[in-house]
Amino acid sequence: MFLVSEFDLIRRHFTRPTHHTDLGVGDDGALFRLRPGMQLVVSTDMLVEGTHFLPGTPAEDLGWKTLAVNLSDLAAMGAEPRWAVLAVALPDADTAWISAFAAGFFACAEAHDVDVIGGDTTRGPRNLCPTVFGEVPTGQAITRGGARPGDDLWITGAPGRAALGLAAQQGRCELRAAHQESCIGALQRPVPRVAAGLGLRGLARAMLDVSDGLLGDLGHLLRASGTGAVLDATALPEAELQAACGAPELARQTLLHGGDDYELLFAAPVEARPAIAALGARLSLPMHRIGTFTARTGIELVEVDGSRMPLTPRGFDHFA
Amino acid sequence: MFLVSEFDLIRRHFTRPTHHTDLGVGDDGALFRLRPGMQLVVSTDMLVEGTHFLPGTPAEDLGWKTLAVNLSDLAAMGAEPRWAVLAVALPDADTAWISAFAAGFFACAEAHDVDVIGGDTTRGPRNLCPTVFGEVPTGQAITRGGARPGDDLWITGAPGRAALGLAAQQGRCELRAAHQESCIGALQRPVPRVAAGLGLRGLARAMLDVSDGLLGDLGHLLRASGTGAVLDATALPEAELQAACGAPELARQTLLHGGDDYELLFAAPVEARPAIAALGARLSLPMHRIGTFTARTGIELVEVDGSRMPLTPRGFDHFA
Repeated sequence: MFLVSEFDLIRRHFTRPTHHTDLGVGDDGALFRLRPGMQLVVSTDMLVEGTHFLPGTPAEDLGWKTLAVNLSDLAAMGAEPRWAVLAVALPDADTAWISAFAAGFFACAEAHDVDVIGGDTTRGPRNLCPTVFGEVPTGQAITRGGARPGDDLWITGAPGRAALGLAAQQGRCELRAAHQESCIGALQRPVPRVAAGLGLRGLARAMLDVSDGLLGDLGHLLRASGTGAVLDATALPEAELQAACGAPELARQTLLHGGDDYELLFAAPVEARPAIAALGARLSLPMHRIGTFTARTGIELVEVDGSRMPLTPRGFDHFA
Repeated sequence: MFLVSEFDLIRRHFTRPTHHTDLGVGDDGALFRLRPGMQLVVSTDMLVEGTHFLPGTPAEDLGWKTLAVNLSDLAAMGAEPRWAVLAVALPDADTAWISAFAAGFFACAEAHDVDVIGGDTTRGPRNLCPTVFGEVPTGQAITRGGARPGDDLWITGAPGRAALGLAAQQGRCELRAAHQESCIGALQRPVPRVAAGLGLRGLARAMLDVSDGLLGDLGHLLRASGTGAVLDATALPEAELQAACGAPELARQTLLHGGDDYELLFAAPVEARPAIAALGARLSLPMHRIGTFTARTGIELVEVDGSRMPLTPRGFDHFA
């Protein structure tokens, strides 16, 4: 480890060619234009060491995740990721760490055709703060507020794996060997559901990404839409989680309350079922229809035996 | 101090009406459109406790400064500030602190017609990370790379006061009573030169804002433009600094190397002198013509007696 200048750091590790940007890294600001008929979608999510990731997290994975969790917010709006800026505070100029972090960050950027157009590098407790920009045809963004009673409630992919990976890392459970890579991978290198988000434009009426836990984030969707929901226990994608940890109750809790998976949770009208199934098949991405939106507020779970149980969100809150 | 939920924090302190935004705080992303013929200008600057501000800095001043230093980057591009997002890490949910910080942040936003459209609140060592957005007519942004030999070198306002204010706060000098408010004010509530930046479109050929020190930032301008510069000691705005601290050598060093003033440093052709003087008069903002750009690289200072001295930038670098 040796100290190099901030300007060298930026130049060496965070400056790469751009593809759809008028002016990138190196001036007081970056410059770009929107394509005609497009709205800009903006999101920012800060990752803090000790709060969002453990000290010692592999830098390349962390670089990937730092951008991925931000792109997930664009996916959840049905937007196409286009640009990103990155502000970072680092305790020291450990060039090996920075180089690995940048490799992961740019791997995620290049996988999604995102131009990295600027940022800021400063000294301080490790903190990674990207702001990301996407485009969506004007009026077609999928917000949280459009769900209606009678709509289906869907979730993509394999929710719960990241929380199970974290539980295993923290020694709270043991994962069977065949499932370790999947769960740790979901935690450390989440895949933002960008293609799914784009494919759901015109199908989903309301959407968000699950970062704080399925029930907690469902609560946001319900509040914004002024609806409730009934979940169908038989439709919850628990089998893989049960197989991974061998504990049905932990699997259930992980599925309902675990965060950090970045799956998309969305509302769609009943008539969209065939199109959603076709989208899932095209993307090789499971689409789970796990419930129904209701006029009555609150969340209920219908068990296999038909019994109903009220559920309370307890997603992650940094100040609660 | 008591703990409240993250969502309450955001709702209570960081959600205010917007004026030119399609969707503000509360969804996965914010939505806005550019006016026709406009480019978007984006900048982000992170402020870290202990690096950029001292613990105990008044929260309302800090809120103002957090946005102001970011708007300064837009001003330096000749852009009109329009939108901002704000990610913050806080060690605790001290609502009095947050309320005061938000008051200062929104005071600066409202003074510049900036819509605050989103953000992120999380727990961690205190870190404030806005990203700001401005608009500029396509092709009219003022970058760092356009200065030509023979151009005048200008700086706005009263550079050096913030560094003198910091020196006084740290006990490195004593300020005369009549100058304390001006210097501490420049440090704690800097005024981004937005109107000057807009007025300099079509006049300035290259520009940046002075955050790291006049010479250090001049070095960036010279490198980007491939030129050198000669500074005229008789034209340097030192009188107020000398009057404030009573030490000519400290005044000179503060002027040349002190940062954090957010004045605009720019290149303009000789024929723009009358228009720049008129702009200064209209804005009641001093415009100091302090030197000339040269084909020969490097920076020289011409003293009152005609002697020439090479100068070396030593602006602030977080990792040097």
